[in-house]
Amino acid sequence: MIVVMKASSKPDEIGRVTKRIEDFGLKAHISEGVDHTVIGVLGKVFTELRDALELLPGVEQVLLVSKPYKLASREFHPRDTVVNVKGVAIGGKEIIVMAGPCAIESEEQLLATAQAVRAAGATVLRGGAFKPRTSPYDFRGLGETGLKILAAVGKENKMPVITEVMAPDQVDLVAKYADILQIGARNMQNFILLDEVGKTRKPVLLKRGLSSTIQEWLLAAEYILAQDNERVILCERGIRTFETHTRNTMDVSSIPIVEKASHLPVIADPSHATGKWYLVPPLSLAAVAAGADGLLIEVHPNPDKALADGPQSLNFDSFRLLMSQLLPIAQARNRQLATHATKSKP
Amino acid sequence: MIVVMKASSKPDEIGRVTKRIEDFGLKAHISEGVDHTVIGVLGKVFTELRDALELLPGVEQVLLVSKPYKLASREFHPRDTVVNVKGVAIGGKEIIVMAGPCAIESEEQLLATAQAVRAAGATVLRGGAFKPRTSPYDFRGLGETGLKILAAVGKENKMPVITEVMAPDQVDLVAKYADILQIGARNMQNFILLDEVGKTRKPVLLKRGLSSTIQEWLLAAEYILAQDNERVILCERGIRTFETHTRNTMDVSSIPIVEKASHLPVIADPSHATGKWYLVPPLSLAAVAAGADGLLIEVHPNPDKALADGPQSLNFDSFRLLMSQLLPIAQARNRQLATHATKSKP
Amino acid sequence: MIVVMKASSKPDEIGRVTKRIEDFGLKAHISEGVDHTVIGVLGKVFTELRDALELLPGVEQVLLVSKPYKLASREFHPRDTVVNVKGVAIGGKEIIVMAGPCAIESEEQLLATAQAVRAAGATVLRGGAFKPRTSPYDFRGLGETGLKILAAVGKENKMPVITEVMAPDQVDLVAKYADILQIGARNMQNFILLDEVGKTRKPVLLKRGLSSTIQEWLLAAEYILAQDNERVILCERGIRTFETHTRNTMDVSSIPIVEKASHLPVIADPSHATGKWYLVPPLSLAAVAAGADGLLIEVHPNPDKALADGPQSLNFDSFRLLMSQLLPIAQARNRQLATHATKSKP
Amino acid sequence: MIVVMKASSKPDEIGRVTKRIEDFGLKAHISEGVDHTVIGVLGKVFTELRDALELLPGVEQVLLVSKPYKLASREFHPRDTVVNVKGVAIGGKEIIVMAGPCAIESEEQLLATAQAVRAAGATVLRGGAFKPRTSPYDFRGLGETGLKILAAVGKENKMPVITEVMAPDQVDLVAKYADILQIGARNMQNFILLDEVGKTRKPVLLKRGLSSTIQEWLLAAEYILAQDNERVILCERGIRTFETHTRNTMDVSSIPIVEKASHLPVIADPSHATGKWYLVPPLSLAAVAAGADGLLIEVHPNPDKALADGPQSLNFDSFRLLMSQLLPIAQARNRQLATHATKSKP
Repeated sequence: MIVVMKASSKPDEIGRVTKRIEDFGLKAHISEGVDHTVIGVLGKVFTELRDALELLPGVEQVLLVSKPYKLASREFHPRDTVVNVKGVAIGGKEIIVMAGPCAIESEEQLLATAQAVRAAGATVLRGGAFKPRTSPYDFRGLGETGLKILAAVGKENKMPVITEVMAPDQVDLVAKYADILQIGARNMQNFILLDEVGKTRKPVLLKRGLSSTIQEWLLAAEYILAQDNERVILCERGIRTFETHTRNTMDVSSIPIVEKASHLPVIADPSHATGKWYLVPPLSLAAVAAGADGLLIEVHPNPDKALADGPQSLNFDSFRLLMSQLLPIAQARNRQLATHATKSKP
Repeated sequence: MIVVMKASSKPDEIGRVTKRIEDFGLKAHISEGVDHTVIGVLGKVFTELRDALELLPGVEQVLLVSKPYKLASREFHPRDTVVNVKGVAIGGKEIIVMAGPCAIESEEQLLATAQAVRAAGATVLRGGAFKPRTSPYDFRGLGETGLKILAAVGKENKMPVITEVMAPDQVDLVAKYADILQIGARNMQNFILLDEVGKTRKPVLLKRGLSSTIQEWLLAAEYILAQDNERVILCERGIRTFETHTRNTMDVSSIPIVEKASHLPVIADPSHATGKWYLVPPLSLAAVAAGADGLLIEVHPNPDKALADGPQSLNFDSFRLLMSQLLPIAQARNRQLATHATKSKP
Repeated sequence: MIVVMKASSKPDEIGRVTKRIEDFGLKAHISEGVDHTVIGVLGKVFTELRDALELLPGVEQVLLVSKPYKLASREFHPRDTVVNVKGVAIGGKEIIVMAGPCAIESEEQLLATAQAVRAAGATVLRGGAFKPRTSPYDFRGLGETGLKILAAVGKENKMPVITEVMAPDQVDLVAKYADILQIGARNMQNFILLDEVGKTRKPVLLKRGLSSTIQEWLLAAEYILAQDNERVILCERGIRTFETHTRNTMDVSSIPIVEKASHLPVIADPSHATGKWYLVPPLSLAAVAAGADGLLIEVHPNPDKALADGPQSLNFDSFRLLMSQLLPIAQARNRQLATHATKSKP
Repeated sequence: MIVVMKASSKPDEIGRVTKRIEDFGLKAHISEGVDHTVIGVLGKVFTELRDALELLPGVEQVLLVSKPYKLASREFHPRDTVVNVKGVAIGGKEIIVMAGPCAIESEEQLLATAQAVRAAGATVLRGGAFKPRTSPYDFRGLGETGLKILAAVGKENKMPVITEVMAPDQVDLVAKYADILQIGARNMQNFILLDEVGKTRKPVLLKRGLSSTIQEWLLAAEYILAQDNERVILCERGIRTFETHTRNTMDVSSIPIVEKASHLPVIADPSHATGKWYLVPPLSLAAVAAGADGLLIEVHPNPDKALADGPQSLNFDSFRLLMSQLLPIAQARNRQLATHATKSKP
């Protein structure tokens, strides 16, 4: 941490800053600049100290030098983390596609979708049982009935399953059925929920919040990692901007940034990011071209009859077409698409 | 709801749209424009229908005419809602100031603050016992110990108390001690939590989410109102924008917009909106000048030693000065500051 | 400027950084931290140096300590600048209201408006002759005919006049008729235009760009000041955010921030910020409560027949009402409204 | 255009709306809904009418059905526009890469860069002679000297050249030397400049403004097209968001959106969008995977000694590596990279 004093700061103000630093058990190191005196702080820094110093007279600004997250950082953990879920390796050489309907509506609907996406190359099955909805009057999911359908269909098709968990007291229930626990964008900073999914030691897919910086996203991952759960998968799903043509703006640059800053795998969800089915294929290709480890895609047998988020779902034909375009992009990045031969064994 | 067909749409595409509308038990009304055919939908509209229609061939766009919230709207409930909390009337003629420290650190700290802010004119005491923190390594509050201190100090000073509740399974505990339950910005769309605080029938202060539109904010209020809890107070606390000089950008215009669109009281939190103590007084005055029903302000005996959010807290002197400036602004808007004579009776 | 080296940086990397600093004729000062080596740079820093250092191996980040603007800063010029325009003092004790139609349509329209706003207390007359329009098919203003009307009506009513200039080669023409040259939000970073209005030595009102930070706004002012023109008035007019209810989000906090960082006067334009006439009065009051030196307000005899921006214009009655509410707010901030007795003399 | 009346609107209010519509020479068509009366407007609609209707009593909202741009729309012009520049076809089957330094510093620097990027596969040479700079104290380019160097080096290497024009009175000068006129992001709504470059009939590359919606971008293109200049190339270069890790957020989704809404070619500028050289390759690949017709990339012989924007420039090796990765991505999208055999002939 570095404290920059005002050009007009006085010796006793500098003295007060160094004293406060020493009160926290740290060492202060003073450098005289041409315009500004700069005080370096040596030792482990607390956020509280920063706040305290910013308020002292004569202080211009306080700059944090170290990153606030540690377990999530590549400095701390240089090698890529690969999250294994029943034989599916996320973050390794293969691109993983997770596909399925936004909301589980019936066993029939899910089964048809599972068979279609599996045949096209998806290796993880997604489906929502508890749905966060902006309006209290919208369909909120089938609940535990949905979870049971999801687990059964996943097992039958030898696909691990992923579904969203929305509240701390739902974690045990959802963990009973799901192979990967999904934290939605609106819950990225639901810190108690992060603690709880951390404790399960199950793989967690952590979506980026609509208005979260990349640093806040990695700090949210840090909550889960701090519970000794290293199986965290990050998921870019768009941020809120002024542009109204898309539901959100998918921040493709976050993918290579996370890859550089963190060892955790990162995938993209172009369905929620754009809100429009015709944008899902080009944004899927873009995400993999930018280095994503996988995709989370909504697929529905009849998107125009879906009970939730129909306009952003692909039908089976569009999904198959997308998967065929994805392969050469993956190869151009020196990667492969996951195949079921590997998957169905374990 | 209005369906606008593409200029190039064909008769059978129009037929398919009207059929789908009728499948939902609604009536379709076709108007031929110069460029576009427009189809009006008569009857109660479901979000699902909108989604379904947007996907049909020949459809250019689907426009929602009715607002998605109802209980929160002024059309539904033309007269102002006044939330009474132990004799403090929020949303009435008087401007209500809620003040106190961001985090409760000790009984001593809270008591000193309560006495100071009460003497200066605050009528509700605030204090955090459970703190949402961006980093898992920051101070997360005293928990139930903090709640007990808060309830005791509030009682002693005849001030109702407000504190944040962060998770559904905390609601009962917090409701035991608090007079007003606060939902933080990060939890504005924690829908299960909204359901739970709704069920308590206690007054709820609902902060606007960092990236929430005004409509989403009113829909979040709708969740609470839908549980038959009409005691909702809205709180503007800044939205996330590109400007980095302030922590968030306080959207002062949301105050008169909410006043027009809804019957619920609306207050402002300039401490969290700006993140800088020197901006709290001018933004407080601005909020009341724009029509706010009250303010939520952080005050701390020694802001530079605070365990959380020191830089945005006023000390006792700055708070007293602010309160003296506030009175003429309130009067200019034909309102009064609440006085304790009224408050301390009940 | 401070260079923070990576935790893993090597001695020769540190050596290369200090050499590069010395190549620029500056001095480097090395401090060893616990995790990071930090190098202070002493002497006048060029942006190019920062860019160069960021690219060197072993460099984690480069932090700028000094503000990039100088002439606009309060450090450089501690006392408030007061811009005098034909006897109207902007930035002094009095609140100045500039009012008039968005676009000048006819002498009749402008004269009626001038008389009405003058009677209500406005002291500067505004009116657009060259209009920036998002679509090429919209009304683009009367051009020089409009300027002549503006100058004549201003003179007749003893009000200085303000109008927008859109291009460098229009500056001479507009300066012939206008007392204050207005730079619109879309041109805030039209740097050649800034140079040109600077050279005129006429007062310049510089609107904040839709997506400009406060620092970029002050740097744009610096362009004008660097031409030895100190008569710059800043104008907050809303920034672009995700909220769609208002055209832009008026950043009220920028007013006290500019007041602290700069000596230049700052006013607010709630008409363009909100785009809705019913929000103009509350936002006007808020801006003055927050410390604005004045207001720029659209007024039209018949807003619903206006050729441009009708929905954000006040009619004469609404403007009169606003002015009557403004006085007590100004007084609460220890200021006065400008009166014509003073104005009409010089 | 559709006028939605309030639920509480009265017959005389509806009458006033229809009368106003007829005053503009248009026809009104009334539909009674369950909650709302809806009035359709038949005929060519003016923006002014919309503004006027929004202000009338009883009106809830006015919805525009037709898009405000016409010449830029795919409805008006279904087939792709291909812009030919001295044998380079932009918007056709081949991906076009424009490369070169941000600022031209010397003939030596530009020549070395031209030879390197040409050898690696670039077919257009870029270089700035007039530089828009946020601060008045930064390097503003070599001016006409730079233009002369650019034209000479381009000719020598048989590459058409592109450079930025910043002001209406610079257009003739720049057009004398440049094959493509570039409009920078800050000038996207400099409407007089758009008129002027339109009149030249030269190819124009129009960058998206930092805070411009896709619709505003297409309307800016409409200004140029309205001058009978159809040779417009759109360029996505990032929008301003809250994320600070990148200079701007490159909106990759704008590429397929523009492709659907317009016939104009669209390319991407990942150098300015991200501001960091290590993000340029992944974002370049992402843009082409999403369907971009080309790229605009900064390349400099010694990025760490560049006089402008060093940190976002690739050196020759990184550029060569990028071009080799680009080919398979282009092929995956069923496209080719442009080759010089074709280029150098005409």
